[in-house]
Amino acid sequence: MPTMPASTAHPKPWSAVAPVLVDVAMGRRPADLVVRNGRWVNVYSGEIIPGTDLAIAEGRFAYCGPDAQHTIGENTRVIDAGGRYLVPGLCDGHMHVESGMVTVTEFCRAVIPHGTTTMFIDPHEIANVLGIDGVRLMHDEAMAQPINVYVQMPSCVPSAPGLENAGARLSVEDVAEAMSWPNIIGLGEVMNFPGVAANDPLMVGEIAATMRAGKTVGGHYASPDLGRPFHGYVAGGLEDDHEGTRLDDAVARVRQGMRAMLRLGSAWYDVASQVRAITELGLDPRNFILCTDDSHSGTLVHDGHMDRVVRHAIQQGLKPITAIQMATINTAQHFRLDRELGSIAPGRLADFLIVSDLPSLVIDEVYARGVCLARGGRLEADIPAYDYPAHAKNTVRLGRRLSASDFDIRAPEGAQRVRAHVIGVIENQAPTRALEAELAVENGVVAMDRPNDICQIALVERHRGTGGVVNGFVSGFGYRQDCALASTVAHDSHHMIVVGTGKEDMAAAANRLGEVGGGVVLISGGRELALVELPIAGLMSDERAEIVAEKAARLSAVMREMGCMLNNAFMQHSLLALVVIPELRISDLGIIDVTAFRKIDLLMPA
Amino acid sequence: MPTMPASTAHPKPWSAVAPVLVDVAMGRRPADLVVRNGRWVNVYSGEIIPGTDLAIAEGRFAYCGPDAQHTIGENTRVIDAGGRYLVPGLCDGHMHVESGMVTVTEFCRAVIPHGTTTMFIDPHEIANVLGIDGVRLMHDEAMAQPINVYVQMPSCVPSAPGLENAGARLSVEDVAEAMSWPNIIGLGEVMNFPGVAANDPLMVGEIAATMRAGKTVGGHYASPDLGRPFHGYVAGGLEDDHEGTRLDDAVARVRQGMRAMLRLGSAWYDVASQVRAITELGLDPRNFILCTDDSHSGTLVHDGHMDRVVRHAIQQGLKPITAIQMATINTAQHFRLDRELGSIAPGRLADFLIVSDLPSLVIDEVYARGVCLARGGRLEADIPAYDYPAHAKNTVRLGRRLSASDFDIRAPEGAQRVRAHVIGVIENQAPTRALEAELAVENGVVAMDRPNDICQIALVERHRGTGGVVNGFVSGFGYRQDCALASTVAHDSHHMIVVGTGKEDMAAAANRLGEVGGGVVLISGGRELALVELPIAGLMSDERAEIVAEKAARLSAVMREMGCMLNNAFMQHSLLALVVIPELRISDLGIIDVTAFRKIDLLMPA
Repeated sequence: MPTMPASTAHPKPWSAVAPVLVDVAMGRRPADLVVRNGRWVNVYSGEIIPGTDLAIAEGRFAYCGPDAQHTIGENTRVIDAGGRYLVPGLCDGHMHVESGMVTVTEFCRAVIPHGTTTMFIDPHEIANVLGIDGVRLMHDEAMAQPINVYVQMPSCVPSAPGLENAGARLSVEDVAEAMSWPNIIGLGEVMNFPGVAANDPLMVGEIAATMRAGKTVGGHYASPDLGRPFHGYVAGGLEDDHEGTRLDDAVARVRQGMRAMLRLGSAWYDVASQVRAITELGLDPRNFILCTDDSHSGTLVHDGHMDRVVRHAIQQGLKPITAIQMATINTAQHFRLDRELGSIAPGRLADFLIVSDLPSLVIDEVYARGVCLARGGRLEADIPAYDYPAHAKNTVRLGRRLSASDFDIRAPEGAQRVRAHVIGVIENQAPTRALEAELAVENGVVAMDRPNDICQIALVERHRGTGGVVNGFVSGFGYRQDCALASTVAHDSHHMIVVGTGKEDMAAAANRLGEVGGGVVLISGGRELALVELPIAGLMSDERAEIVAEKAARLSAVMREMGCMLNNAFMQHSLLALVVIPELRISDLGIIDVTAFRKIDLLMPA
Repeated sequence: MPTMPASTAHPKPWSAVAPVLVDVAMGRRPADLVVRNGRWVNVYSGEIIPGTDLAIAEGRFAYCGPDAQHTIGENTRVIDAGGRYLVPGLCDGHMHVESGMVTVTEFCRAVIPHGTTTMFIDPHEIANVLGIDGVRLMHDEAMAQPINVYVQMPSCVPSAPGLENAGARLSVEDVAEAMSWPNIIGLGEVMNFPGVAANDPLMVGEIAATMRAGKTVGGHYASPDLGRPFHGYVAGGLEDDHEGTRLDDAVARVRQGMRAMLRLGSAWYDVASQVRAITELGLDPRNFILCTDDSHSGTLVHDGHMDRVVRHAIQQGLKPITAIQMATINTAQHFRLDRELGSIAPGRLADFLIVSDLPSLVIDEVYARGVCLARGGRLEADIPAYDYPAHAKNTVRLGRRLSASDFDIRAPEGAQRVRAHVIGVIENQAPTRALEAELAVENGVVAMDRPNDICQIALVERHRGTGGVVNGFVSGFGYRQDCALASTVAHDSHHMIVVGTGKEDMAAAANRLGEVGGGVVLISGGRELALVELPIAGLMSDERAEIVAEKAARLSAVMREMGCMLNNAFMQHSLLALVVIPELRISDLGIIDVTAFRKIDLLMPA
């Protein structure tokens, strides 16, 4: 594989290289690369212009027009596009790298062949483990990529102050500091929408710091209520939202001057319903943006990334040029980057795709900063791995080895049966149901009710080595075999969630993750049947996306073997500590009623 | 007239008042103003939404939606829009206040009743007289207005270095300094397009300083050549252009990622031809912007301002919503101000119009920052005059009194007849023709040829009191009477241009302007027939626009009485020193061949 020229890794700003670009355009200096005879997909005019040449120097377009012959010198590389389409590199308007369980570098390796050349990432998960240091690590890794990876500063760490302790806590001062970093593009999804509407000082302060820095304030209004709380949220200064799911959600956001981000992730399908605002209601498409939010490694490896979203949007009836605008210039404009990327035009970064069919978006070649990074769906660039420091790989601190008895739930003295709260998993939905069950007591310890699919869940404190274990009950996984699944991916505080039908396996699973520095493990009868090691913050692998996808696929298969038939079974597991979504969750503080936003006792009074 | 509340003169940033806006939206705090039952012209979605209420506080929109009842308190002013249209205040994307011969304040007084609530002004003329100090004066006056007046830092002062001395000279350092002023929005029209394409260090430096400040680089590509020089200009970093006149000009600019500014000024008619890019070719309208560039006081008083442009654009076949977008959100987005103005949406400045008919844009009321400034075409606000300092009113320095003999053009010793270059005025065009004529010699002095409409022109140095007078010949005004017209509006160096059929009148006219501190005067047979006093920099009146318009109308009438039948006769006069437009001009250095860009001798060798 060719190593990328170092000079293109960090392209100089247009202001610094304008004289070079002018010289190339005027024919006084040869271009580095010339692409001849393409169909220019022009996201400014909305046209597709045949017979277009592009001349590139300093990683930027210097000339886009009918004939670049005058820019060709002895050492200019010349490519014949043969009438194929020249499309701006695709932008993902909002996403979390951690969802792929890989590093930023690996994520880039996986998505570049799919035409993604710009990502706006919110390292919310690592922030919950490592705080602002974790954000800085991913920020620095992002800057080292051969494509554009901008970072949104996480806004809600912890997600639910008072209901959980995360590994860290971000303050207004942290946000203000991050705004001065070179690669921070704005504030990440402000999930605490009740806090915005209530003028919570942390939310007000973070948003104001972002506005003062002239950066983009990312929204996350995860509620169907389009009345007063929605209007309060908008007035607070949020600029976009990717949580809409219904047609009315998209219309309401755009009318209010927000940008509607339509999401197609591994488990999100919000484009089809909302794109009707354009195809059926005729709204101006300029304020609509496509994004993925969360892509699992399997999706990246097997289905694609932003190419998948654009294709899907076209299938919903959008004109190809409109769908492409929604993944290029609209996104760039939203983040005040339209002079830098998101189009094929002079001065902009030479990020573009050579596409042989537009409606089905067949991507033959991917260029970023004027360098060919992928061809025929295969990565052609050598992107060196980013070296995470030891402290980022040593984040699972249990404080001690756990044993089966740590998962004992003591019944009140003398009780024969007890009534307990049970977290009820709902297929294909993030909310849970607050169930109750009557359970037997054996030797003073409350028993699971496996015939009725009630097994145990534990939240194991893993950030500070307190040795803390919070126990509870969960229903819905359908495990019929003896087993335990432990995971340090445990949104959003990312402690460790252990679900099991046997306490020996639960202890073994927890201890195993302590040994490997985090990840996901399934143990059945003492045997390790699946392991996805995620040593970086307990969230990300340092292996290739293909390998992670394979390991994750094996985990899913083994979960099915154990009897769990849920779609996205691991995702359901990993969301059980997400104490911002109703109805019942577990945190390091106890069982949380997320309707009343308070801690409750696991066992009910007799 | 009500005095505006002082608190709205400088609205606080959204970041500072977000909690107030949230409180209003949530119904916890009453709005200052509520408008009920309007038709929301939504420039984001492209819809017109009936039954809309707006709630306003702190000069910004707090709530825009179906029912603002919950925001109404005891002291809330409530207006019933009665189903009329609610349109964002209109923005003029590029213009020169000096063209109206009035101050910024007077310009605002004139245009507010026409619905203009935002202007992007380039004080290029005062910069040629007073340099960066002049820019600062207009910048400070702009900041004192009750509407938004942003200033573009002039880029080309003098316009033609080496071919003229202006009253001042701006450097890269000046531009860099101005970028830190609170009200500077970018760099003004970079007219030196050959300089950009040639990487002239001054142009490169100014553009880079503006880019580094994250501000908008204004273009001015006044050439029909859409080949290499145009591409070189674009690569240099220019972001917009208002000099296009043909359909192809607009298309080329938008394709290259520039914004096409379509101009309808007092003497510019560039909308009809170029808007066909949208109405006929179907280009995406989002990168098209409407502007006026130059409006004379008579146009402001009798015809309107941006309302006139929007109406005209609709008459050309644009949908009203599209034309309005081109005068509101498109402009705001171009200047990175879309979170601040250009739409009716929460957080934005409450700049809006109540309009009773959309296609004909009948503006009933004009609000800026939530305050009603005009009603039924009449200004309702008290806008105090801005006090220009003495040195800005004392800029006409002739150094001495001129006499008739200062305008004598000496023939070579013993010559009976001479051949001379003559500047030929072309009706309705800015370029001149390089004519030649054989002229008689009387007493050693070259005579005018009044039967053939050849009279004298003089450029009188007025910035430094050198007493310098450059003499030449001009043809095309058609003066049949004895007269002289003198003007300190003399683009772009703004010395004094005197055109006359008699030298006594020429001297008298020049001396008269010396007495009144600049302006325009017409003297015939020793009698002053018209005078427009322009004491501020010799460019602007301190009187009301109506009075200036009346005086300017009298000047035009008197010019016609003298025999001059040109359209825009005074404008033709004022452009004769514009040494950047071919073919022949006059400057303080001599007669300039603007085809070869060099000084030539007035008289040709025998």
